[in-house]
This record gives sequence, C-alpha cells and structure tokens, in this order.
Amino acid sequence: SGLVHIKNPHLDSMEEDVLYHLDLGTKTHNLPAMFGDIKFVCVGGSPNRMRAFAQFMHKELGLAGDGEDLADICAGTDRYAMYRAGPVLSISHGMGIPSISIMLHELIKLLHHAKCRDVTIIRIGTSGGLGIKAGSVVITDRAVDSSFKPRFEQVVLDDVVVRSTELDKDLVEELLACSKEIPDFPTLIGHTMCTYDFYEGQGRLDGALCSFSSEKKLEYLKRAYDAGVRNIEMESTAFAALCGLCGLKGESFHVL
Amino acid sequence: SGLVHIKNPHLDSMEEDVLYHLDLGTKTHNLPAMFGDIKFVCVGGSPNRMRAFAQFMHKELGLAGDGEDLADICAGTDRYAMYRAGPVLSISHGMGIPSISIMLHELIKLLHHAKCRDVTIIRIGTSGGLGIKAGSVVITDRAVDSSFKPRFEQVVLDDVVVRSTELDKDLVEELLACSKEIPDFPTLIGHTMCTYDFYEGQGRLDGALCSFSSEKKLEYLKRAYDAGVRNIEMESTAFAALCGLCGLKGESFHVL
Repeated sequence: SGLVHIKNPHLDSMEEDVLYHLDLGTKTHNLPAMFGDIKFVCVGGSPNRMRAFAQFMHKELGLAGDGEDLADICAGTDRYAMYRAGPVLSISHGMGIPSISIMLHELIKLLHHAKCRDVTIIRIGTSGGLGIKAGSVVITDRAVDSSFKPRFEQVVLDDVVVRSTELDKDLVEELLACSKEIPDFPTLIGHTMCTYDFYEGQGRLDGALCSFSSEKKLEYLKRAYDAGVRNIEMESTAFAALCGLCGLKGESFHVL
Repeated sequence: SGLVHIKNPHLDSMEEDVLYHLDLGTKTHNLPAMFGDIKFVCVGGSPNRMRAFAQFMHKELGLAGDGEDLADICAGTDRYAMYRAGPVLSISHGMGIPSISIMLHELIKLLHHAKCRDVTIIRIGTSGGLGIKAGSVVITDRAVDSSFKPRFEQVVLDDVVVRSTELDKDLVEELLACSKEIPDFPTLIGHTMCTYDFYEGQGRLDGALCSFSSEKKLEYLKRAYDAGVRNIEMESTAFAALCGLCGLKGESFHVL
C-alpha cells in the first residue's frame, strides 16, 4: 500500500496523539491536509542547515517566491525545526541516537496520521571520513556499530533488543547514479560507523578525556577501514533500524 | 587548587584548541578574559529555556540593564546556545547522552583554558516523575542506568569502560536547604534514571513502536520505584560521570 507501518497496538485506541517534540497533534492540526502529499523527507543535525536545504529545494523545484521566508512548522518548540518545499520535508534532528530517535518516532506517526504514501527518507549529514578525500560524499550501504556489526541495540524497558540496520539497496544505486550526473562530486558507497560519543568513541585525541595513544587510535581506525567503514557519525544505526521497521525507504548520505 | 582536571595528555602539545561545537577557540578568543570569573554553570536541554534562565539570573543578581538583550556567546553555531549573567553561565545541551557529552567535553576544556576555579555545575532539566506530584522538584542523589545501577558505560574506541555516577553529596543537601526557604516548592531527593530512548526506553505506550503491554510497563516502573528511582530523563549518567572525572562539583536537579 506504500503506507507507513506503525507497530504499536495502543495507538488506535488513543483519542488524541500529541507529537510533543514537534509541537503538532491530531486534534490541534489537520495532518492529512498539511502533510498528505509529502513524498521525501530529508533529515540532518543542524536546524540552520535544514532551513538552508529547504530553501535550496524550493529554488530547485521552481516553486513560487524566493523561498527566503519559509516558516518553521515546529516554531512552537525549539527541540527540532521543520520546513517544507513542495513534496519535500526538511527536518533537523540534533546530535546523537537519542535525539534522532525522538524525532523519528514522532515523524513516523506524523506520516501515518497524514496517510502519506511511498515516502523516501534520506539523512543528509556531515561526518568524519576514513581514508578518503575531504569533500567526498559517502552513500551508506550499511550502518554499523563501534564493533563494525550491522546492528542497533535498543533498550526496551530493561531488555536489550537487537535490530537490523540494512538500508534500501535500490536507493543506494539510484543516489550513486545521480552523483555521476554532477561533475566534481566525488562519491562512493561504504559502511558508515555510528558511535555514541564524538571524542572517546571516535578516537579523537582532543577531548577533555583521552586515555589512548595515537597508535591505539590509528590501529582502531585501520580495523574499521578494513571492515569496510568509510565514515563515522552518530545517528545512522538508529535511523536505519527505525526506518526499516516502519517500512520507510531510507538512505543515509554523508558529506565529509 | 579548585581547577578543572583535564585528563588528556595530548592536549598540552596542541598549538590551538578549537571548541568546534561552541564556536570558540584558544587562538580566536581570549578565554581567561571571557570566562575566568565563572563560578556556576547551569545546563539544560532547550536553548530558549537556557536563555530565559540567564535572563532570570540577570534580574535575580541585580545586574545592570533589563537582561532582555543577552547575546548568545555561541551565536556562530546552532549546535548549542550559551549566555552569561555575572558569574553564571547558562548553556543548552540538546537531548540525550551523545549530545550532552559533546557539549561537556568542550565546556570542561573551556573552563580549563579560562583557568576557572571552584566551579559548580548544575543540570536543570525537565523529566518524567515516578509516583510523585507533577510540579515537584527532584534533586538527584544518584544517577542510575535502565537496570537501576549507578554506572555509565562509555565506549572508548571499541572497549566498554564503566564509570561511576556519584554526585556531590554536600551540594544535594545545600540545594535541599535552599528549596525549604521557598514556599510551595515541593522538593525531594531521589535516584534519577537515565535512558537512551524516550519512547521504548521509558515505557511509553505512544511511540511509533511499542511491543510491551500496559501491565509490563507498570511492572517495570514499579521495579524502578522500588529501587529508589523518582524520575527519568536522558542525560544524568553521562553528566555525573564526566563532571566527576574532571573534578567539577556537579548536581542534577529536575522539575517534573
């Protein structure tokens, strides 16, 4: 049917669903009218960058007006920012798995309530590269954890549930084909490693704490490279797991 | 000496330290002049709320002007927002452990470079309560994980390191004494549980995914209550672990 799958039997019996961190809700907003025609959702960490992306899309799509005055749909909260340009929704998710998870739970319910069909979701983020040129783009074929395994460990109450982090293979190829139409746009496909920490978790030597040597760092990053990792960021495993479970065609796409 | 402890032998040999996510640095800013007299740092999730808190402090401290035009010290980035009112710094940290960790690494280095002494750091956040009245305040005596244990598991490269999450006992008592001076300010001391997920991790029945029953949820929350947990949020274990390791007198303080 192309609809989003909500996997929560409790939701049907709720009178109202408040998407608290988006400042939207089923009683306060007409979600099908506002979002029913959305086909693409692009997400990234920074609110300013997602605003700039929506303005860029506005121009690319040749929509009326200069797109400079796009309104933040989530203006009532400062947790996330959301803009739309035609069928494209552009949303910020902050930094790290917990922050993107809250946004994705509420976004997925939003798409469900709005009865959206055949939605593609793409994370467009910055990341650190491994053994590749700055300015390159990595299209993620697989999101892996800090042990280079394609899995996301989710704590549900106090049980640990392991979820798959596979991404949409057709979408990977489609994005790679797009990149080839643009000159000077070095693009490759690789695994993306997702960590819970920017400093100690990614081998940085300049945090407030650092207990490892430069050699130990390089040895770890070499092992990551040998396992197919080409870039490191902080959201991809949760993104892949949640989108996969809810039937959203998802892809993660990183500029270094 | 009251100075902040940086536990990173690499830092001394660095020519410049760029606090990237705060848009500050040792070569671009005179950090001792800007921050040397800071004695209190208050942190919370939302940028707007931390701005309002700085304005409130500005008035409480009787500083010149109405405090309405406080400038965001991190205006060059939208990752975090930072304001100051006299000796008080007010900073946002976003949602979740990875987000607060990045901010704390850079804040701790900032206080170190600025040669601040005897700094107290307090997290003032919202949270969900367990068996207590809405509007109450919980002062955290101990941050615990989803298994109710006072520990923070940090992945360093691919090793898991377990860190203590004890908070400053004197500060807990001091804050409780302050609360008694204010009428109608129901305050209690309790353990604070920190989770990586807002929906499945905290027993919510209204996420995009929910695989447990209402009974299973209540059974888990009852076990948490019996273990001494009085509120649930998403940053306290990392906050307690990082502040503790770096010699910052830290406390976490939550409004329900």
